[in-house]
This record gives sequence, C-alpha cells and structure tokens, in this order.
Amino acid sequence: MVEMIEGLVIDLDGTVYRGNEAIEGAIETISRLKAAGTKVVFLSNRGNISRKMCREKLSSMGLDVSEEEILLASTIAARYLRAHGEGRKVWVLGEQGLIDELCIAGVPLAERPEDAGWLLITLHERLTYQDLNLSFRAVRHGARIIATNSDRMFPGEGGDCIDVAGMIGAIVHATAQDVEIVVGKPYSLMAEAALETLGLPPERCLVIGDSLESDIRLGHAAGMRTALVLTGSTDLRDVRLSPIQPKYIWNSIRDVSSVLGIERSENELREEKGSHI
Amino acid sequence: MVEMIEGLVIDLDGTVYRGNEAIEGAIETISRLKAAGTKVVFLSNRGNISRKMCREKLSSMGLDVSEEEILLASTIAARYLRAHGEGRKVWVLGEQGLIDELCIAGVPLAERPEDAGWLLITLHERLTYQDLNLSFRAVRHGARIIATNSDRMFPGEGGDCIDVAGMIGAIVHATAQDVEIVVGKPYSLMAEAALETLGLPPERCLVIGDSLESDIRLGHAAGMRTALVLTGSTDLRDVRLSPIQPKYIWNSIRDVSSVLGIERSENELREEKGSHI
Repeated sequence: MVEMIEGLVIDLDGTVYRGNEAIEGAIETISRLKAAGTKVVFLSNRGNISRKMCREKLSSMGLDVSEEEILLASTIAARYLRAHGEGRKVWVLGEQGLIDELCIAGVPLAERPEDAGWLLITLHERLTYQDLNLSFRAVRHGARIIATNSDRMFPGEGGDCIDVAGMIGAIVHATAQDVEIVVGKPYSLMAEAALETLGLPPERCLVIGDSLESDIRLGHAAGMRTALVLTGSTDLRDVRLSPIQPKYIWNSIRDVSSVLGIERSENELREEKGSHI
Repeated sequence: MVEMIEGLVIDLDGTVYRGNEAIEGAIETISRLKAAGTKVVFLSNRGNISRKMCREKLSSMGLDVSEEEILLASTIAARYLRAHGEGRKVWVLGEQGLIDELCIAGVPLAERPEDAGWLLITLHERLTYQDLNLSFRAVRHGARIIATNSDRMFPGEGGDCIDVAGMIGAIVHATAQDVEIVVGKPYSLMAEAALETLGLPPERCLVIGDSLESDIRLGHAAGMRTALVLTGSTDLRDVRLSPIQPKYIWNSIRDVSSVLGIERSENELREEKGSHI
C-alpha cells in the first residue's frame, strides 16, 4: 500500500525561485496546494537570510506563508548552538540574516574574533578580504568551526554562483582546522526539524528540490519520497551520472499535480461513488 | 672547506618589513652589505604586487634597489605562463600588481572568466564575493588553476593575516578542481630564478627568511645555506616542533654580521698578515 502524500518539504533556491525571480508556475502551484489543505514546509540551506526576510521575499512574489512554515539552515544553526554551543560566543562569517536568527535564539555573539568559541560560516555575498581575515583569526585563537551548509554552488540570476563551500574552503585551507558540524541538507538536523514542523511521519511526506546532493539525499536518509525538479542546478545528465536517484523527476514544481492529482482524482472518484473511507 | 657567502637571498615580509613598517635595523644592515659588494636578491612569495611597487616600497623605507634585484611570485608566475601557458588567456584572482607583471611578460588576459584557459590565484587583500564568483566561473568553464604561492598566513600590521591559501581553498573546495602549479617558495622555480640573478652557485649563497616552510625549505632543496629570523611568523617553539631546521637562527636580519663578520675578520686578519690568497 502506498501512503498518501500529506506533507511537502519544498526547497527554495532553484525550486521556487532563482535569484529574485519566481520560477514559472511555482507560486500558483504552492498557493493552490496550501489552499487545498496540503501541509507545506520550506526547507532551505540558505544560512545568510532570516525567516522574516524569506517570508517577505515570498510575499513579494505573491505567496503568503508564515515564518513557522520556513526552516532555513540559519534557523537550525541558531537552534543547534543554543542547545549544544555550551554558551560559547559566536563569530559569524556571514550576513545580517544569520545574526538575526542567532539573536532570536538567544545565542551570544563575540565582539572580537579573539573572544569566539565558535566560528559559524555561511554564504556571504558581500564578503571581503577583511571578513575572511577576522574569521581566520577567530579560528587561530581557538574557535571551533560550524557551517550552516556545505553546498558548492547555487543557481543565481547570472548562472551558478559559488556557495558556502567557498567560504569554508578559505578558512579550512588556511587554518588547517576542519569543520566540526554542518547543519544543512542533507544532514539529519534539517530533516528532523521539517518533520516536526509538519507533524507527519516521513512516509507521508515528499521532498521537492533541485539538488541530488542535498534535497534528494536528505529525503532518502529520512525515509521520505523524493522529487527532483530541473529548474535549478541539476540536469538529466547529472541524474544519469549520479548514484543518488530521485523517485520522481519533474520539469518543475508544477508537475507535483502528477502525484497529488492522481490521489485527488481517486478521492474524487470515491466521492462520486459515495464511498468515503 | 666552508665556502664564503657571496650572495644573499632575502625574504621580504617578516624579514625586511612587517606591513608598511621596516623591521628595526633591516634597512641599515642590507644597505651596508650592498655597499660592501655583497650580491643581494629579494625573493618574496608576494604575488599581489609588481617589482616596481616593491622597489618603491623599499625606496620609501630608505633602501635603494633595482627591479632586477627583486623576484616576486608574481614575476615568476608571469614568466612561467609566458613560457608554458600555451598562449591560453589568463583570469586573475588577484590585484593590479600581478596584472602589471603579466602585461610586462606579454601574457594574454581574458576579458571574461568564460574565456580563460588559466585561473591565476594570488593574495587579494581587496577581495570581494564577486571576485571569488568570477574565478569560480572561470574554472567551471575549463580554466586550469595556477597559484603564485600557497602560504597560509603572512605577518601583517595587526597580526597574522590569511594568505593565498585562503583564496586557493575557496576555489578548490567549491569547484573540486585541484591547483596544478604552485610557483612560489619553497618550489624550485623561485630558487632557480634567484640563483640565475645572483650568478652564483648555491654553495656560496645564504637564504634569509622568517618561514621554515617556504624560505628554509627552499634553501635546503636548492643546496643553499639557511638563516631563520624571528621577526616574522615563526618563533623558537615552532622551530623545536618542526622537522625543517635552519643552519642559523637569528633574532633579526641584523645578525647576518655574525656569519659575514667572521669571514670579514678573517679577511682582515689575512690582510694584516699580508697573506692574500
């Protein structure tokens, strides 16, 4: 017996939008599903924005969601450091959105890199040499390294862009000290948070994303079904060459109707026959 | 028989100056040696400045040298690409000084990262995210990676600073493509150029520098004598922990008189006795 899909775990970059532009049909599709009662959580490896910023971005595209429906690597990193950071102060190689999430979670921030017990690394699109240098000094003075995620690239408006792996590589290569914790997809902290938010067992959830390495791997590891969309960083050639195989491959998130639609049709059929279960 | 020291291979950062400040006694010591006829070449892993910029910096500190007496990793990288770059265009992750050296050597530069056959990486103290991203794209479009050097840190005015290893790590970690060639110390391209400039066999040369990993290793590999100065990034504890052992350890380059002085004294002695050899 195949369980109904009742909850969707939806990636953002490359699945819902590219840069500041919504992917064709994504907003309408998600709005319709939400209106029909499908539970949704947005799960993004973005560590450089806050949930508030993300909600406003989606809202500007015409999609109304609550902050509770958004889980970012910044959110989960902040929660992790509150629970397991041992009260050590944090130096951030990243942007205001991550600092906002840390403040909301009540994680103490270091005023100088020399005072930091943790260096938290995320994507930093306004990075300068000085940012790298201060983070380098934090680690040289004993800070342990945690990263919101370890993605190599993300689909931006002008093509693929270097992601947090670049920032991690800079610090790790220059200090010879490894990253201790990576929070983001495909690792389990993100999947656990998504399932808790949805309040559903993994068998009734579907992960939709554009990355084999982060979205599809996360789904497999957590026991969820998986759908790869081709609107982001992955094409069919990548799929053929990868050991990671999604259950579904879709041109875009619009094709979600192909799996939910069948079930809806079956429901409608049952309704027509008066055979509610 | 111990050969006379006739040529000095002198490191710059941490040996002659720190940041924009001359190290106490360095300028006077080197001026005196040059006036006495000792052959000198300055050998620096700096890839972000040109010989002209370096000569002007030394001149502003009171030391007059010619550009021919200066060999930078930028100089040698440009010469290498002219000789072995197969005419491919170069994208630079670095600063104007390196671009100047490439132009002087007649190496073609790429106008867009997509056109580059080589990505040349050096220290970039005004680095931005956009610089990293364009270099990332060069490699994604097929550029091979060459670096002026692979130092992890250099002694700056506010303490140790992240060096080109950080820039290399960012690109290598995000693209999963390795560096093919590292030009700078301790590798042989720099030693060969220094000995050619001095016109002396290695047995008559002494390398003076603050780095075990680059200066002292270069000296050992090339068959030169070596002196470590403690005015830069290395302290006595580092020396005790390292398998790389210099022949001399000096508080600063001023102590060079301890080895040249003895020989001078012996010469003077011989002169007094009228026993010229």
